[in-house]
Amino acid sequence: MTDKPEQALVVFTPSGQRGHFPIGTGVLAAARSLGVDIDSVCGGRGICGRCQISLAEGEFAKHGIISRPENISEKTAAEDRYDDKRGLMAGHRLSCQSKILGDVVIDVPAQSQVHKQLVRKRADTRVIELDPVTRLYFIEVGEADMHEPSSDLERVYKALQLQWQLDDIDLDFPLLADLQKVLRKGKWSITVAVHDKTIIAMWPGLHESIFGLAVDIGSTTIAAHLCDLDSGEVMASAGAMNPQIRFGEDLMSRVSYVMMNPGGDAEMTKVVRQTICDLAREAAETAGIDVNDIVEVTLVGNPVMHHLFLGIDPVELGGAPFALATGLAIKQPARDLDLDIAKGARAYVLPCIAGHVGADTAAVVLSEAPHKSDEIMLVVDVGTNAEIVLGNKDRLLACSSPTGPAFEGAQISSGQRAAPGAIERIRIDRDTLEPRYKIIGCDFWSDEDGFDHDTPVTGICGSGIIEVVAEMFLAGIIDQDGLIDGSVQARTERIVADGRTFSYVIKTGEPDIAITQNDIRAIQLAKAALYAGTRLLMDRLGIDEINNIRLAGAFGSHIDVKYAMVLGLIPDCDLKNVHSSGNAAGTGARIALLNRQSRIEIEQLVKNIHKIETAVEPAFQEHFIEAMAFPHSSAKYTRLRCAVQLPQGKTSASGKPTARKRRRRR
Amino acid sequence: MTDKPEQALVVFTPSGQRGHFPIGTGVLAAARSLGVDIDSVCGGRGICGRCQISLAEGEFAKHGIISRPENISEKTAAEDRYDDKRGLMAGHRLSCQSKILGDVVIDVPAQSQVHKQLVRKRADTRVIELDPVTRLYFIEVGEADMHEPSSDLERVYKALQLQWQLDDIDLDFPLLADLQKVLRKGKWSITVAVHDKTIIAMWPGLHESIFGLAVDIGSTTIAAHLCDLDSGEVMASAGAMNPQIRFGEDLMSRVSYVMMNPGGDAEMTKVVRQTICDLAREAAETAGIDVNDIVEVTLVGNPVMHHLFLGIDPVELGGAPFALATGLAIKQPARDLDLDIAKGARAYVLPCIAGHVGADTAAVVLSEAPHKSDEIMLVVDVGTNAEIVLGNKDRLLACSSPTGPAFEGAQISSGQRAAPGAIERIRIDRDTLEPRYKIIGCDFWSDEDGFDHDTPVTGICGSGIIEVVAEMFLAGIIDQDGLIDGSVQARTERIVADGRTFSYVIKTGEPDIAITQNDIRAIQLAKAALYAGTRLLMDRLGIDEINNIRLAGAFGSHIDVKYAMVLGLIPDCDLKNVHSSGNAAGTGARIALLNRQSRIEIEQLVKNIHKIETAVEPAFQEHFIEAMAFPHSSAKYTRLRCAVQLPQGKTSASGKPTARKRRRRR
Repeated sequence: MTDKPEQALVVFTPSGQRGHFPIGTGVLAAARSLGVDIDSVCGGRGICGRCQISLAEGEFAKHGIISRPENISEKTAAEDRYDDKRGLMAGHRLSCQSKILGDVVIDVPAQSQVHKQLVRKRADTRVIELDPVTRLYFIEVGEADMHEPSSDLERVYKALQLQWQLDDIDLDFPLLADLQKVLRKGKWSITVAVHDKTIIAMWPGLHESIFGLAVDIGSTTIAAHLCDLDSGEVMASAGAMNPQIRFGEDLMSRVSYVMMNPGGDAEMTKVVRQTICDLAREAAETAGIDVNDIVEVTLVGNPVMHHLFLGIDPVELGGAPFALATGLAIKQPARDLDLDIAKGARAYVLPCIAGHVGADTAAVVLSEAPHKSDEIMLVVDVGTNAEIVLGNKDRLLACSSPTGPAFEGAQISSGQRAAPGAIERIRIDRDTLEPRYKIIGCDFWSDEDGFDHDTPVTGICGSGIIEVVAEMFLAGIIDQDGLIDGSVQARTERIVADGRTFSYVIKTGEPDIAITQNDIRAIQLAKAALYAGTRLLMDRLGIDEINNIRLAGAFGSHIDVKYAMVLGLIPDCDLKNVHSSGNAAGTGARIALLNRQSRIEIEQLVKNIHKIETAVEPAFQEHFIEAMAFPHSSAKYTRLRCAVQLPQGKTSASGKPTARKRRRRR
Repeated sequence: MTDKPEQALVVFTPSGQRGHFPIGTGVLAAARSLGVDIDSVCGGRGICGRCQISLAEGEFAKHGIISRPENISEKTAAEDRYDDKRGLMAGHRLSCQSKILGDVVIDVPAQSQVHKQLVRKRADTRVIELDPVTRLYFIEVGEADMHEPSSDLERVYKALQLQWQLDDIDLDFPLLADLQKVLRKGKWSITVAVHDKTIIAMWPGLHESIFGLAVDIGSTTIAAHLCDLDSGEVMASAGAMNPQIRFGEDLMSRVSYVMMNPGGDAEMTKVVRQTICDLAREAAETAGIDVNDIVEVTLVGNPVMHHLFLGIDPVELGGAPFALATGLAIKQPARDLDLDIAKGARAYVLPCIAGHVGADTAAVVLSEAPHKSDEIMLVVDVGTNAEIVLGNKDRLLACSSPTGPAFEGAQISSGQRAAPGAIERIRIDRDTLEPRYKIIGCDFWSDEDGFDHDTPVTGICGSGIIEVVAEMFLAGIIDQDGLIDGSVQARTERIVADGRTFSYVIKTGEPDIAITQNDIRAIQLAKAALYAGTRLLMDRLGIDEINNIRLAGAFGSHIDVKYAMVLGLIPDCDLKNVHSSGNAAGTGARIALLNRQSRIEIEQLVKNIHKIETAVEPAFQEHFIEAMAFPHSSAKYTRLRCAVQLPQGKTSASGKPTARKRRRRR
């Protein structure tokens, strides 16, 4: 024996963190002292199994170390117990039970890390680093003792201080009533869930799983994703129609309902909260978990959905100056929002950007991360309004454009919601002008053998409308101004007079499924608004070209971007650089659920996003008028022309470039 | 004109703060820069009238200044408006409107100070410095503007920052729903009540009065005092029986009720909260204020009352080790306790000291302030249990002693609560052994002409019981051991045999009002417990004598301290140093309501109070046995003997000092 205790070299992989430790040091303790990321709920008691590691045997020249199996202590009784009961991973040890007896290389598997990285499906989006706000801590609490009188809660705090170095902890008040029973049921050992500095849930003994719910409150549908806060995994998803639809199909009709029916906002608040409770219960059942283990919920929605969910009268959002009651992130006990999950569960509502650009757009930004991009990125979320975000890491601009609900099939004569029987794809023969189409619920085209002719064709959904109008343009049925050309009647019976204008009949029936001149106008107004908003932001940023476009939301997922560009919904861009980002709002809610830093990030970010109110921008009106034609400017869309054969342009009356514009374009 | 702006000397009285200021400086601004305490709700807009000052005219040799009326600017239009509408105090000015034109002495009246000193009635107690946690701020909020989109709440925060230098403010969530309407109703001027960093109430325009409620939840009665948070004045008081009485007369029977009736705690929680709501409404009506202007409530009560009010099952308090769920101060929105006052009102429940020594005792400590005393002070609060606090600024000890309810008239054959018809005072003639007495509701003694012989004498209340037993001892009817001396039957017919023992009949009737041997025993047990508790604390503190005794609570207010000492309830002390401190628990609740620092003070203090659990102290039992006699030790009570002629002592069997004790006493 020497005077100095013998030291051993320990290298942790994959991080490569290394240090010398006295023989006999515990592996978990060594890891902690080096800052190696190893999880533990039980705090080194050998019962949670979170801290599993394995010894890497052999010579590691890179690290200058030979790692031998005998350099780690024998399995303890606690490890055998854990292995019997719950099973250690093959070849793994509990780091809290293993002692260092000589030089070793210790591998920390991903499962044992606190800050796991969640791989997202699309390669072009960033990874979610798992770092939830709420974490579990197992503690052994001192028993009540007459000789040392102190309250049970004070002894819980003391245990958290001594066993986890957590200071200044608070207990969520409604949990106080359960504390004594839980402590005694757990024989003075309990697990607590700590959110920031507050205990928001507790269980007798060791408890290892907690969950969170990410909720996207759309005007039409509400979607909830149940996530495991330890693995980040989506355990179950559930969706439902927004029950507010019975008070008004679109946002403005819901605001009108409140104006006409004082107290109507309270009814709408109640039904949306109830639906979210139902979704939570449904998702919990699907995943086979206790709804009381859902300790967090994050929520996103457009400003009207946001206000109605929070119990705020949305009437101010119905007219200028469109003032939000608050745009700040909301952090409240979920019970204050009538969400019936864990008693102390916390709700986080993402911040809004402006009166028309809500928490849903903030979530889209979080998901698509234009603020982390070097390149300028355009993110468009099309719903009843279109929210548009443009910029990069240096600067972000946002606006909302009043597209109206035409893109969702509303205000279109044969329009309908995306549902079985709706036309979602269409092609028009350039010669015969005969259509062929696909309907939702059937994988075949209407001219294919497998097509189900028995399913009634009920209408045209949003993506179908974009395609049919674009195809009509590409087939020469409508001109650049959007006028249905009556002379085409000579070539097909599908063009029928409709008063002074004409319609194109896709399918005869009672009634016909057709596209009227009014339908074309509605689409023109909608797409002009969308384009004008984008153009306004481009002007502000001083750019004339975009090379990265993300289409968010259900609309963005279903439309063929080529057709969107033919109609001029979005600026010219290489088609390969236009992507659907799927349910980006839901993804943003999930990011906020799983990563504490993302909340700070988005709260900071929304403050710095420059909001542009299209209603007070004269240039918006100019862009709008100019954007009515298909595609609004024949001189442009050069990149689109590489992909699609556009009809010969003729200068339109409404889209006619002014002298000034023409100059600027050169 | 010189290069430097001319300076004037300004002296503020009564503080004597002084400084030089450029001619034209506003008086309020000058005061602020010197840290002179001048109130203002409107922030210098000349509308709240809180900042009134007067100019002191003449030569002030002490300050080296001649103060002339012309050295202050003329009254402004705003002051005239205020004077017309609400009236300035005679000769007063609004400091926010007055400018310094030359050397002046400015007097700040007490009414204009934020930190007013509240004078309490008893001279021996400390003054309450008025410094409530909640304060009002009038703000002018920027209007919503499409060109600069920001939410209403963000503009409120900005106004608080710019106009009052308040950063990091939060809005209590349920108020968010009202924000937009209040802002628009007040035409973008509102008053907010800020509690710590949270807006807990708001009103359109200027609002100047907010109130708080101090509540003392006793086992028998609940008392509420409504205070003006600006003046500190008690506007109204209201009291009611504790409705929990129907579940059990005393604490332990209520705990038993819960044991026998699962869910019984919830019923008791509900009724006590409801009663407090009723008291708040009643007090508000009496004071003529809106119950929604009550923005704070402080509450005290013994541990069982504390737990039941908070919705915590009190069963753990019913048996060893008497563990509190929590002893920490509770700070919650009042709505979480079902208190129906201002929507955002805050409740503060004082900390508990131990499982038997509750928030009521903490309040008594706050009121009597033994921790600020140089001299050792004994504070005794007698109820069903007696809470005892002993010590001074260096060290405080506390315990609870199981006196049982005998002192409250329970378990006494003719005992009753203090109510009209109850005997509250009694004297026994030393020769004839005839009693004379006073009953509650009549100002005359029973042998005086004005005595109302028609009012039925219904029983004996707590203070009457102390007196009758003490008088029986002083008259020689009972001996030092508490035995009713049968031989006295020879002298009076009022001594009647009662099985093997005797009773003393005060008044014959159906039934007789009498004191039985069992009654004497009950009083002996109670007073021995009380004395033993005190003695235990004295032992721990190593003292043998006390020169300052405070008797708190209703019992302490009504008993004649001389008789309490004759019976040996409290240690020997000069009678002039024994004081009733009245409703000290209620006073403590009021201090916590009116002074923010007092909350920190008591929270710190309870941590440092040494708690002694009598049940585990062998010495308690010894003291208890020894203290059964009247007064327990004839060798003591020398100071009492100066005031009262005690009967010749004979050494009692039970009270016989042991050899060891005798040695220690020398």
